[in-house]
Amino acid sequence: MAKHTTLYQHGTLALLVPGLLRGTMTMGELLKHGDTGIGTGEGLDGELIILDGKGYQVDASGKVNLVPDSFTMPFANAHYARYSPLAELENVSQDDLNEQVVSLSRAANTFFSIKITGSFSDVKTRAVRKSEPPFHTLAQTARNQKIFTKDQVKGTLIGYYSPELFDGAAVAGFHHHFLSDDHQFGGHVLDFHLDKGDVSYQLFDTFEQHLPVNDKDYMQHDFSTDNIFESIHTSE
Amino acid sequence: MAKHTTLYQHGTLALLVPGLLRGTMTMGELLKHGDTGIGTGEGLDGELIILDGKGYQVDASGKVNLVPDSFTMPFANAHYARYSPLAELENVSQDDLNEQVVSLSRAANTFFSIKITGSFSDVKTRAVRKSEPPFHTLAQTARNQKIFTKDQVKGTLIGYYSPELFDGAAVAGFHHHFLSDDHQFGGHVLDFHLDKGDVSYQLFDTFEQHLPVNDKDYMQHDFSTDNIFESIHTSE
Repeated sequence: MAKHTTLYQHGTLALLVPGLLRGTMTMGELLKHGDTGIGTGEGLDGELIILDGKGYQVDASGKVNLVPDSFTMPFANAHYARYSPLAELENVSQDDLNEQVVSLSRAANTFFSIKITGSFSDVKTRAVRKSEPPFHTLAQTARNQKIFTKDQVKGTLIGYYSPELFDGAAVAGFHHHFLSDDHQFGGHVLDFHLDKGDVSYQLFDTFEQHLPVNDKDYMQHDFSTDNIFESIHTSE
Repeated sequence: MAKHTTLYQHGTLALLVPGLLRGTMTMGELLKHGDTGIGTGEGLDGELIILDGKGYQVDASGKVNLVPDSFTMPFANAHYARYSPLAELENVSQDDLNEQVVSLSRAANTFFSIKITGSFSDVKTRAVRKSEPPFHTLAQTARNQKIFTKDQVKGTLIGYYSPELFDGAAVAGFHHHFLSDDHQFGGHVLDFHLDKGDVSYQLFDTFEQHLPVNDKDYMQHDFSTDNIFESIHTSE
């Protein structure tokens, strides 16, 4: 049964830091928890965006690939979409938009998602490059990421907002992924300007955190020596 | 349907710090998420322990009361019990026991519960005292808490372990509540010695965090000026 007030998360942002990058959930399993979402593949294999029940990967060459159900992930979010209109906005920067969304939604102390469809300019994205075991740390991966830019593009942005208290489990504040309407451009959003678009949002009362308890490397890892927060805020 | 691998939590430890103590979930609702758990009442009204589907409150006079379904709580944990034997232990201190449990369970990176039944000595508990609106902060409440001790007592300890990453949402490390077999003694455990008892544990792969999104005071609170972590580790 679809629960429209639950945000599901597999893995944590923190486990990416020391490179615990085994794919511990398949896309097929993730899609049982939502039709909309974001994530990354095993070994940090690109940037994922899930729209209307289909998973798309932006790989390190910038190509957009449809993801099979067998594709595995160390970290992903999903939810069942039931967005409500929040605002029609024109000519706003990413920072302005984030600020307006928090102010309009009055939801800084809970998890929510935003969806923006419209015309964007100066969109800057990145896609990480897959490493094979022994996996790279997040900092090593970040050094090998590819940056893509697009002057003008129509598309969909899916973003998640997480309260500060959950920093490390999730990305505190906003975490946006993008896919162009023509499926030729996308990735983890670093910057954008919204020329004109519809902003909708969906508030969650429940954050369902699933951990990879069957992954021995995760369960036996000593996180106390990782500099989780510094690494996350440098890399994300 | 009972999900034995899910730990449900209503509210966060962090919201107790500035005194967001309105009861935002009833015991009746909580019991739909488990038959076992811990928590506190509106205004920090005592220490709760849920055993076999029944909620008990240790109030600030030390009395144990059966809690009605209409009783409301700002913060509570619940799960459906399906414990597995971990060890039979004799003559161990709280610190030794906690250390042995983490070592035996190999589960420091996920949430789990322990249940200990047996003979305890030198049990030291506390119970907080209810405040009325405007509610006290956690630090103010801690100054008014009552301490109880028992030289020899048979009973049940329910504990939850949370990974360090979730500190602030939950209590990182162990959080134990106790109820004596004769229902005359209990509370939030500060210290104990286990003379002889059976230790069982239950591992969770999912932490289901429910937030009081309908509570305006919670949603509008600015947590950035609360010294959440310092206050929690002084008071808990």
